[in-house]
Amino acid sequence: MSTKPYKGFSPDWFTERAPEKSYRSIYKWGDPNAYKIPRERLYTLVKEIFEMTDEDFKERRELGLEEVDIEVPVALAQKHIDALKAIVGEENYALDTYSRLQVAYGQTMYDLMRLRKKIVENLPDIVLYPTDKEQIEKIVEYCSNNEIPLYVYGGGSSVTRGAECFKNGVSLNLQKNFNKVIEVNDVNHTVTVQSGIMGPALEKLLNNAKEEYGTRYNYTCGHFPQSFEYSSVGGWVVTRGAGQNSTYYGKIEDIVLCQEYATPIGNISTDRTPRSACGPSMDHIMMGSEGTFGVLTHVTLRLFKYNPKNHLKFSFMFKNWDDARTAVRECMQGEFGFPSIFRLSDQEETQMMMRMYGISGTPLDAMLKVRGYKDYEKCLLLGFTDGERGYCKNVLKNVKKICKKYGGMSLTGIVTTSWEHGRFSDPYMRDNMQDFGVVIDTLECAVNWDNMEKVHQEVREYCHSRPKTIVISHISHMYPQGANLYFIFITPMDDIEEFKVYHRGILDVIQHSGAAISHHHGIGKLFAPWIEGYIGTNAMGALKALKNYFDPKGVMNPGGTMGLDLPEEEKVFTNGKK
Amino acid sequence: MSTKPYKGFSPDWFTERAPEKSYRSIYKWGDPNAYKIPRERLYTLVKEIFEMTDEDFKERRELGLEEVDIEVPVALAQKHIDALKAIVGEENYALDTYSRLQVAYGQTMYDLMRLRKKIVENLPDIVLYPTDKEQIEKIVEYCSNNEIPLYVYGGGSSVTRGAECFKNGVSLNLQKNFNKVIEVNDVNHTVTVQSGIMGPALEKLLNNAKEEYGTRYNYTCGHFPQSFEYSSVGGWVVTRGAGQNSTYYGKIEDIVLCQEYATPIGNISTDRTPRSACGPSMDHIMMGSEGTFGVLTHVTLRLFKYNPKNHLKFSFMFKNWDDARTAVRECMQGEFGFPSIFRLSDQEETQMMMRMYGISGTPLDAMLKVRGYKDYEKCLLLGFTDGERGYCKNVLKNVKKICKKYGGMSLTGIVTTSWEHGRFSDPYMRDNMQDFGVVIDTLECAVNWDNMEKVHQEVREYCHSRPKTIVISHISHMYPQGANLYFIFITPMDDIEEFKVYHRGILDVIQHSGAAISHHHGIGKLFAPWIEGYIGTNAMGALKALKNYFDPKGVMNPGGTMGLDLPEEEKVFTNGKK
Repeated sequence: MSTKPYKGFSPDWFTERAPEKSYRSIYKWGDPNAYKIPRERLYTLVKEIFEMTDEDFKERRELGLEEVDIEVPVALAQKHIDALKAIVGEENYALDTYSRLQVAYGQTMYDLMRLRKKIVENLPDIVLYPTDKEQIEKIVEYCSNNEIPLYVYGGGSSVTRGAECFKNGVSLNLQKNFNKVIEVNDVNHTVTVQSGIMGPALEKLLNNAKEEYGTRYNYTCGHFPQSFEYSSVGGWVVTRGAGQNSTYYGKIEDIVLCQEYATPIGNISTDRTPRSACGPSMDHIMMGSEGTFGVLTHVTLRLFKYNPKNHLKFSFMFKNWDDARTAVRECMQGEFGFPSIFRLSDQEETQMMMRMYGISGTPLDAMLKVRGYKDYEKCLLLGFTDGERGYCKNVLKNVKKICKKYGGMSLTGIVTTSWEHGRFSDPYMRDNMQDFGVVIDTLECAVNWDNMEKVHQEVREYCHSRPKTIVISHISHMYPQGANLYFIFITPMDDIEEFKVYHRGILDVIQHSGAAISHHHGIGKLFAPWIEGYIGTNAMGALKALKNYFDPKGVMNPGGTMGLDLPEEEKVFTNGKK
Repeated sequence: MSTKPYKGFSPDWFTERAPEKSYRSIYKWGDPNAYKIPRERLYTLVKEIFEMTDEDFKERRELGLEEVDIEVPVALAQKHIDALKAIVGEENYALDTYSRLQVAYGQTMYDLMRLRKKIVENLPDIVLYPTDKEQIEKIVEYCSNNEIPLYVYGGGSSVTRGAECFKNGVSLNLQKNFNKVIEVNDVNHTVTVQSGIMGPALEKLLNNAKEEYGTRYNYTCGHFPQSFEYSSVGGWVVTRGAGQNSTYYGKIEDIVLCQEYATPIGNISTDRTPRSACGPSMDHIMMGSEGTFGVLTHVTLRLFKYNPKNHLKFSFMFKNWDDARTAVRECMQGEFGFPSIFRLSDQEETQMMMRMYGISGTPLDAMLKVRGYKDYEKCLLLGFTDGERGYCKNVLKNVKKICKKYGGMSLTGIVTTSWEHGRFSDPYMRDNMQDFGVVIDTLECAVNWDNMEKVHQEVREYCHSRPKTIVISHISHMYPQGANLYFIFITPMDDIEEFKVYHRGILDVIQHSGAAISHHHGIGKLFAPWIEGYIGTNAMGALKALKNYFDPKGVMNPGGTMGLDLPEEEKVFTNGKK
């Protein structure tokens, strides 16, 4: 990734591999050898907005390069440890603090701040690395019978404190040994996997399915969250995640065909037919249960043909946010099919992207201004298509027609290509920025079209109430009835308490504005105080009834997850829907 | 509908309006003034296959023209009747046997046989006709508090004994007064209705939405079950129904955006955003609950633009079932979009249709034979498209290409037009045939592509084990991963017990073959013994936990519905998935 030196002063960006067993090696995003430093344009912008100078970028802080050398005692009784070891085998467990810390924290900014400050808490007593479904079933049964808290770690990219072991006990690290493809079904166009398989490993096998499995086609699973490289299939499913291409492929709940769970009361194996009328959907009861009902073991996903050559790229600039929003809504309601990537940046994000991609100050920028596309007003739409060639062409043709109608100026596919380059690598920049005290964090929500502007305005207003803060947002993951609204805030901040208050404030505003508090990040323990306020107390009771049925001893992901065992005083009710 | 006299002997088909208050007026399908007599071709075919003669069609039997004059006593205490009357008002209740019988029976063959034989059982004590949501909420609360069984009647076309009042008590007839459109949302493309609104009333308003509501477009809800004319929106939702155009529009669970229920523990109002990640889906918990958790009051459906001119019709003849099945599967997996109607008849149904549509014996038929499309081997595919024009064209282009590849010969759109004519009127024929002792009944199931032929063969084999029986089937409601398999059997039969044994046998075979026992008819009380065997005992426990939460007194649609309160000995386990 980017290593070009700046023309001006260049901060001493940390570009080395984090030391083995260090705090940084845990919180650092992604590939241990990769990093991404902001381009000089962005660095300049950041200094300008935050009123910082090169001086502020001379000293790095709280890098967490030190080894995790504290010893957190194991509280679990030896007889339990012996019993669990007997299930997974001598090779497949760990008791050292580093391995335990590794599976407890995810990728929330709160996790990063704690690790930079060497705050170690909520560790499991033991980490197990099961190799098959039967081992997981035995572990679940054992933990329930002996009332031992049980957590699951997949790819480690949770931004909801989803895997954090509030009650200690056992954590299953599924990534290590529980990551095989069980079956590629060429007739049904499905793949069945062990839930710990990571996105890229699965995608690589599918893209080469003809060779790997002798299938008729090469396939894709169509699910590419920004965390793609560091997320597991199981994590996608139990949190109800979404990939960036979901406007065409659907969210993970649209991609899942059927699932198998190990729960304390036994196994749940859902209906494998694409649709049925046999009562409430067990698939939809289990998806989104975030490890509180049981452990997802096997999952079958729908497959799509791998046709990257059908990516027809496009980008359009609109004069204002209202026109742009109307255009994308009309596209989504046009019934001509859907683009795959379809991403509309608001005024502030557009401004930022123009600078990041080096368009500001160029002849193109000048031309835009002449034609009435003004700074801090204009909005950028980008995307590409997926599917059969004729389908893709028809989508593009209609998108172009509608965009033109609403004053969209085509910038060709080049802007989309620029965006694609940063698609999975942008998160790397977060660590480098934070080394100098600048925090980049994200929040997202689900909205209907008729409520979108209210949510957008109210959240931005709150975020901007903090001085020197960039708040950029985009609409992505679109549907005919609404979309995901995604907020990224960037601000100099290094106090944990200050962060918590600010973060909580954003969530309050999201909920109060009428949006769903998550479209694809999930609830975990971080968002748990808000869920009852959103879904209502009666619906919450239904989830608790299910929890009590599947997990009568309360051992599955306990400690507030999804609000199921949250103390009354921690609940937040902002929309009166109790 | 058809009234042309035959060239040969013409049976004395019953074509009059059923007498007021008669048994026939209850069981008769649809419009009181409409009927459909088989064409002479079909009449000849029926005689040929069933080895019947004109003699057998000289005397009609068990027409049920007599008035329902028995008095079934009202067992509900007067204080409860008074309290319920006070909720709905003096005009909005009924205690007479006829009104009570009307809401208790649906359209299963078992219902028809009972009414023809004047078997009256399982009536509610009182029928209420609520006018708004608040009344329904009060009734649910009152019934739960006083442990009075509560049933709901919508359109009356249940084929699962769904609304039958096994425990007597109260039945809400929602069709009469609870049938208004609450809101058409032109921004989100949604409509919110009271659940008792009937399909055609809603569709008519939507098709004229520009005029009726001042919207930008005229709309359609895209949901057209064969029972369209006599089914309510609420019925579609709580049973997880499907329309004939579902291959494009989706099943009702794909069309529903959000819902509101009155349950004994209070109201449930689901998330109105198109997708979210806030735990298990409450929508999918409530859809398919068939009145056992609560009463669906308001429901919001996604809308589509009304573009009937974009119906591009097609039909193809294939040489055999294997090629035809492969072709439609490849279409569904082609990622070029989906046709709206997409219906593949098997060998026997094709043979029947060729005769019904008068193709047998024509030059077209002769040409088919010359080209190798043989009787009892060839299979007919028909359909049309929906959506934006370019999308429709691209779908048709790809369907044509794939069909050609598998030996499909285009028969143009004429065959589809013939099918369309009978689309909603064919059910009328059932009563006229049964007047002469010939039973026409249907069963359907959900299958994956890789299991389809097994299911098809095993069910047909069982059905044919009864002599003189026609069994025709088709694949409709298709998906990339599988489809609905629909069976129609026609056989001379008038003994109820004989019918029950035969019907039960078909269900056993469906379940044993690995199919889901319903794709869109639902479970009700008729299919209830099989559900636990299909979804498994652990999943069944989850549904029972929900039931117990929402309806602790067990007053909502009690008497076996969905297997929730079914005695152990009535359960059927054929696939070992306990």
